[in-house]
Amino acid sequence: MKNFDCIVIGGGSGGVRFARIAAQRGAKVAILEERHWGGTCVNIGCVPKKLMVYGAAFPHFLESAKVYGWNFKSEGLDFGHFQALRNAEISRLEKIYATNLEKAGVTLIEGHASFVDKKIIDVSPSPLSPNAEKMSLTAPIIVIAVGGEAMRPKIEGAELGLISDDMFALECLPKRLAVVGGGYIGLEFAGIIAGYGSKVDLIYRQDLPLRGFDEEIRQEVAKRIPLFDINVHAGHSPKILQKTEEGFRLICDGNLEIETDAVLFATGRRPNLDHLGLEKTEIQRSIDGYHLREGEEEYTTTQEGVYAIGDVLDKVNLTPFALAQGQSLAEKLFPDTAKKQRHWNFSIVPKAVFFSANISCVGLSEEEAAEQEDLHIFTSQFTPLFASLEKGQLKEREKIFIKIIVSVKTDCVLGASMIGKDAAEIIQMMAVCVANKMTKAELDATLALHPTTAEELVTLTSKPRFVLKKTGLI
Amino acid sequence: MKNFDCIVIGGGSGGVRFARIAAQRGAKVAILEERHWGGTCVNIGCVPKKLMVYGAAFPHFLESAKVYGWNFKSEGLDFGHFQALRNAEISRLEKIYATNLEKAGVTLIEGHASFVDKKIIDVSPSPLSPNAEKMSLTAPIIVIAVGGEAMRPKIEGAELGLISDDMFALECLPKRLAVVGGGYIGLEFAGIIAGYGSKVDLIYRQDLPLRGFDEEIRQEVAKRIPLFDINVHAGHSPKILQKTEEGFRLICDGNLEIETDAVLFATGRRPNLDHLGLEKTEIQRSIDGYHLREGEEEYTTTQEGVYAIGDVLDKVNLTPFALAQGQSLAEKLFPDTAKKQRHWNFSIVPKAVFFSANISCVGLSEEEAAEQEDLHIFTSQFTPLFASLEKGQLKEREKIFIKIIVSVKTDCVLGASMIGKDAAEIIQMMAVCVANKMTKAELDATLALHPTTAEELVTLTSKPRFVLKKTGLI
Repeated sequence: MKNFDCIVIGGGSGGVRFARIAAQRGAKVAILEERHWGGTCVNIGCVPKKLMVYGAAFPHFLESAKVYGWNFKSEGLDFGHFQALRNAEISRLEKIYATNLEKAGVTLIEGHASFVDKKIIDVSPSPLSPNAEKMSLTAPIIVIAVGGEAMRPKIEGAELGLISDDMFALECLPKRLAVVGGGYIGLEFAGIIAGYGSKVDLIYRQDLPLRGFDEEIRQEVAKRIPLFDINVHAGHSPKILQKTEEGFRLICDGNLEIETDAVLFATGRRPNLDHLGLEKTEIQRSIDGYHLREGEEEYTTTQEGVYAIGDVLDKVNLTPFALAQGQSLAEKLFPDTAKKQRHWNFSIVPKAVFFSANISCVGLSEEEAAEQEDLHIFTSQFTPLFASLEKGQLKEREKIFIKIIVSVKTDCVLGASMIGKDAAEIIQMMAVCVANKMTKAELDATLALHPTTAEELVTLTSKPRFVLKKTGLI
Repeated sequence: MKNFDCIVIGGGSGGVRFARIAAQRGAKVAILEERHWGGTCVNIGCVPKKLMVYGAAFPHFLESAKVYGWNFKSEGLDFGHFQALRNAEISRLEKIYATNLEKAGVTLIEGHASFVDKKIIDVSPSPLSPNAEKMSLTAPIIVIAVGGEAMRPKIEGAELGLISDDMFALECLPKRLAVVGGGYIGLEFAGIIAGYGSKVDLIYRQDLPLRGFDEEIRQEVAKRIPLFDINVHAGHSPKILQKTEEGFRLICDGNLEIETDAVLFATGRRPNLDHLGLEKTEIQRSIDGYHLREGEEEYTTTQEGVYAIGDVLDKVNLTPFALAQGQSLAEKLFPDTAKKQRHWNFSIVPKAVFFSANISCVGLSEEEAAEQEDLHIFTSQFTPLFASLEKGQLKEREKIFIKIIVSVKTDCVLGASMIGKDAAEIIQMMAVCVANKMTKAELDATLALHPTTAEELVTLTSKPRFVLKKTGLI
């Protein structure tokens, strides 16, 4: 039995940040990881995904080149060349994560972790970690940071489809891809594969994509998706996936059948808690069995000394949120009076979907804000300067949509959203404004930076749409 | 003699905005323009310049494409195609300016304006406006908004060189260009023409480019310029420009001679006041004869009833500044109690240089801030995700540099600068933060949007450099 001050289960964004800071503050820390140092974000999420978004954008960009007088002839795509570089970069980043942990004095342990008792964790080999060395560990503090995993739908043939993890291991691109799911992963991969020139069918159950986003943004996004040559089938659910001679057949309800070369199930993710041996402990899951049940204090679970951070809590499943949670918890458990504890505003979370037209938002949606008070809604749709010489579909693709939600009573900016190029880059600093209750008048008082897309956020003074507080309508 | 409530001399950014608002508020307004409705920004400045920046960026982008596995073969540039589209777009915008003025009920008059008496303005034909109809106008309120013009250096052969106006009329690109001037116009055109593949020599008098910018940013920019295949000759001034058999020879001090096909003098701009007949009025110029001498109140001149806005005041020669001045003055002279007068923060001006690596800044430079107080300087230099697979010069070009200047005493962010892709888009919202005295702790409390470049602005927590208040050093 190896003893530590602190065991972290999961070497992803949250776990690594926690472990590094705890160790820097003198704790004897072990961190357990079954698959990849750096977790989903670095290995099978944010980073390789955005590199593919960049790669898939070149053909669209080359259409614009013609407008600017440049004639380029495509001599094809060497996807393997890109993949090799991308994989090398991901490996480099993974090693940096491991090295930084080692430098901080953290003990790195590879293998599958599972509780065998309230405070005893066994590490063992698993299909993801076949060479792991068996051992038992214990510590007064245990942090669960195992993240989440992709969920397949419960349909016949679901195992024949891909999940997002698999998209990074593709040796070549499918000529035809059906994507099931209108969430951000579905949209991003539909955009990537269509950008690379494949035929893409996107199937989602609801009328509009991006459930949970501002309704008007969802409508705008729905209008954009076909502009990127994606066939949308809204209001359908998959029923059966079959292997055929040429590929696959996806049978959906509502008389929809799609013949394709591959199917991606982007049908949600769930906390990765099934094989952790929680039944041997007092650590409980939520009533629906989905995420971890929280204890009375922040990051605590139902068992004393066991904490949880990141996607296992299923609050905001984003890297910066997990990083901030990991750092907060480490600074709380191992206070350093010489250093100021970093404070985060967890209530304002900027988000982006790196679809072919980037989508970003921060603060409240119109629907959420209207629960609270009367609103002024400012929107703008315009062609950015880059696309001003373009025509038709090319120009339509590049259109920018901006929405700012303002409290009538206080003039505070409650939320903002954008669709289009640089949407995520521009919204980041808007997050500082929303988190600090900046007013619309303060935005308007700021001089524009011309010519930019972002200047529209400080020059948007046309007559707003008025929205009455929802409860006032009764 | 035609009588108006108000005459605006100059149909550029400031004049047009003033005229439109004054007319909307019931004033009988005439606006006089000699050359282009919309002025420099729309016709021979911001807009066509940035379109050329976009056009010239494609070859660099295509180098990145290879890294992403795409092989494209250049089949050449049809610069005329781009120019035709660009000129059509500029004409369209110019017409929109004119139409919007007409819709607001403004009387548009084309021709050269000149005072013949304190309150009488004659309009006449000029080389820029040969078909103008002669007439005389008067009004109790006159607004001078004639903007600025490029200055040639006082050297032999200066007339053989181009000024920025000419760069928009080029029928084909020079194979070799010498650019004289290390300010933003010089840098932008050097970047454009080098981007298009021509050999570019950039000559400036000082050791570093971008006089007036933060010193560290100037040093960083100086390092970047050669990465874009521009030959820099710092510390040289032009002496003689000669026509040769093959093109031109630019002789500079310090034993520098450059053989080239064209020379661009980007050696500054000055208020366009020389032919306005000011000697017939009480309107005075500043002691150095450069800009208009201001009256006692904002936007006033030394003659009652005559106001000035925009570049003629030579405060901040940027479109948004002139627009805001035009609107402020119109709202002040023609108050509308039913509408709130818009307030602008003129002390915080975001700026950008659309060089091949964009440069942007807002608030104080380190040198300006250090005059006031002790500082913490946060800087970061990193490869953005887009360039993470690149190598060598290609990668170096894409590096991002970020600088945040923070007051030790109040923790307020006093200024920020960026070099690299999207620098201008990202700094726009930082301007709202700086104008509203946001603290570094408030930036740090904001969750990041990952993966973006902008997230570095809220995650920059490494140990800052300490700078003592300048007077404290004595």
